[in-house]
Amino acid sequence: MEERVGEAEPEQQQEEEQVVNPWTVLAKGGGKIDYDKLIDQFGCQRIDQQLVDRIHCLTGRPPHVFLRRGVFFAHRDLNEILDAYERGDKFYLYTGRGPSSEALHLGHLIPFMFTKYLQDVFKVPLVVQLTDDEKCMWKNLTVEESQRLARENAKDIIACGFDISKTFIFSDFDFVGGAFYKNMVKVGKCVTYNKVVGIFGFTGEDHIGKVSFPPVQAVPSFPSSFPHLFSGQDNLRCLIPCAIDQDPYFRMTRDVAPRIGYHKPALIESSFFPALQGETGKMSASDPNSAIYVTDAAKEIKNKINRYAFSGGQDSVEKHRELGANLEVDIPFKYLSFFLDDDDKLEEIRKEYGSGRMLTGEVKQLLVQVLTEMVERHRRARAAVTDEMVDAFMAVRPLPNMFS
Amino acid sequence: MEERVGEAEPEQQQEEEQVVNPWTVLAKGGGKIDYDKLIDQFGCQRIDQQLVDRIHCLTGRPPHVFLRRGVFFAHRDLNEILDAYERGDKFYLYTGRGPSSEALHLGHLIPFMFTKYLQDVFKVPLVVQLTDDEKCMWKNLTVEESQRLARENAKDIIACGFDISKTFIFSDFDFVGGAFYKNMVKVGKCVTYNKVVGIFGFTGEDHIGKVSFPPVQAVPSFPSSFPHLFSGQDNLRCLIPCAIDQDPYFRMTRDVAPRIGYHKPALIESSFFPALQGETGKMSASDPNSAIYVTDAAKEIKNKINRYAFSGGQDSVEKHRELGANLEVDIPFKYLSFFLDDDDKLEEIRKEYGSGRMLTGEVKQLLVQVLTEMVERHRRARAAVTDEMVDAFMAVRPLPNMFS
Repeated sequence: MEERVGEAEPEQQQEEEQVVNPWTVLAKGGGKIDYDKLIDQFGCQRIDQQLVDRIHCLTGRPPHVFLRRGVFFAHRDLNEILDAYERGDKFYLYTGRGPSSEALHLGHLIPFMFTKYLQDVFKVPLVVQLTDDEKCMWKNLTVEESQRLARENAKDIIACGFDISKTFIFSDFDFVGGAFYKNMVKVGKCVTYNKVVGIFGFTGEDHIGKVSFPPVQAVPSFPSSFPHLFSGQDNLRCLIPCAIDQDPYFRMTRDVAPRIGYHKPALIESSFFPALQGETGKMSASDPNSAIYVTDAAKEIKNKINRYAFSGGQDSVEKHRELGANLEVDIPFKYLSFFLDDDDKLEEIRKEYGSGRMLTGEVKQLLVQVLTEMVERHRRARAAVTDEMVDAFMAVRPLPNMFS
Repeated sequence: MEERVGEAEPEQQQEEEQVVNPWTVLAKGGGKIDYDKLIDQFGCQRIDQQLVDRIHCLTGRPPHVFLRRGVFFAHRDLNEILDAYERGDKFYLYTGRGPSSEALHLGHLIPFMFTKYLQDVFKVPLVVQLTDDEKCMWKNLTVEESQRLARENAKDIIACGFDISKTFIFSDFDFVGGAFYKNMVKVGKCVTYNKVVGIFGFTGEDHIGKVSFPPVQAVPSFPSSFPHLFSGQDNLRCLIPCAIDQDPYFRMTRDVAPRIGYHKPALIESSFFPALQGETGKMSASDPNSAIYVTDAAKEIKNKINRYAFSGGQDSVEKHRELGANLEVDIPFKYLSFFLDDDDKLEEIRKEYGSGRMLTGEVKQLLVQVLTEMVERHRRARAAVTDEMVDAFMAVRPLPNMFS
């Protein structure tokens, strides 16, 4: 499970339809992803202002910037989770990451930053699945390399500030087995090969490791997969914060859940974080200049933003003063809308930059400042994460205070 | 993994070819299985007298009746195992059972009786896989019922006399995980969906639990799947005694093994144990009168043999005295050739019965005596198997004396 910057697979490109699944994010005709259409296609719901207000009210805390700004824009059954919460029933959070790279970029942090907010405001436990088995199979990494990357990525996840008394991080290679495996078999029994072909687009030349994987990502949605945490709490509901490309896994999971006696997991889903070069066209995770990494030095951040961040400003200062910036395509403004917490400041930039009174250079300068601070903060937090802390987060243990 | 009495699936019947795979054993045109042709189709080797003599010589013990009589008739790489053994290198045995029924019949005991002989004469460790996950998926049993049957079947297996200091019995639901799961992923990566369709005949309407299963049965062939037993002994060879319907799993395993750095497992394969009604025609495991069960009382054994065991004798005593019995189709004689250890006695029956001097009734009487003794012995042994013994055999533990 991984936030995608949109690794396109050209051979799967279709002129007619956008393609969004865990391995391909491709807009129609090379344009922008049509999220309204995606909501229709997938059959999920849009998060409206009323729902954001409800979360505000229930938690007594201002909604996270990703909620206020519509980064997390879609959901399934979030109202059921909130209804239950309102009645005094708790739930648990489940998110994950496919550990395929050493260093995470900002897009990778988004679900974790948001999940930490959810953990804080709802005071609920969290399970984080590191799908090292998936990456071993899809990226053809060795088992050892996948597990090494899982531990490295766990450090970045821990650096996001999760509460160790409420958080269990696990690697599939370590944790698959027992109750978890039993649930995998129960799910596998309910899903035909034709069904996974329809959902994930597998072909006969795909290996059976891939075909076997969807149940692995499905079963953390069921509390009985974690007897050390949720023994005797089979009715506990699960909320999954993730990027919307992971929706196919959980459509499958939700289809199966009632047939094996479990609640359907609820979802809260984000849009994709755009590449520096813009939301359109082909972006590649293998191009280090398409993203800001949490390991980038201040100088690199400044250089990448100044050189590569696609500007919606006009070609000349005169034209810019006259027409203003096109904020729809402007990456510095887009990035600020993700990471600049100050609503008034963002609104001011929208007006000033959109009307042409503010220049791209000034916006980029502010963005460099915001991201450098954020990356520096993350780097310091990550440096403080010891191997012992990783072991502690990943220990199979009860969490007696997870709901308090 | 299960010895088959030949559960035919009519919809898969092909007039042209015999079908032998883990779920279907069907002879051409409803006749007898052509084992010579099967050896050609599968690409395994026949066990010849020279190989039987070599085992005799290497072990210093008379070959098991199942070897002398050709019940175990085919192999893959058995000579490599014996070459290595001759050089002083040990190996380990792997066999298994799919726990789908409460009571075992005689056919089910064959691989275990033979495996016990191999363990005794070669002084080697044994792993026994109980594929409760498989039966949960194929027979649509609950997880709990599959696990209960696995423990019940483990008692019958233990009753065959395995040495607890050399034997590890495991249930997949209990044991899948860790190093075992890592090997499952490694195998899964090497086998395409098209490949398993070719080997096992899966269709798009089969559930993905089935598609995921072949690696589960494959990986006990690799010593690294059992770190508590074979840590640091990745070069240890594996010999699998099984009925030949399991060959497809191990063809797949042998294809994959060198690609992931492991030895190919060797195989020693048996023919099918015939139903009481004879080797031809449709036999059904759901018909209790088609087999002798280890739970049958003496009276039932006598009744089943007298009423149902297909006789190759002639219709009248006169004709029988004149023509003799057709031993090719005679079930009492066939059963004696499996279970009457005395070669001279069997030879005498072959001559006397084949020539008509001996009548079917006399042969049946001897068979009743042999089987009643065998079943009584098994019943006594099984009654002595406590739950604590099952726990002990199934405990994940090192076996320090497994090679002595």
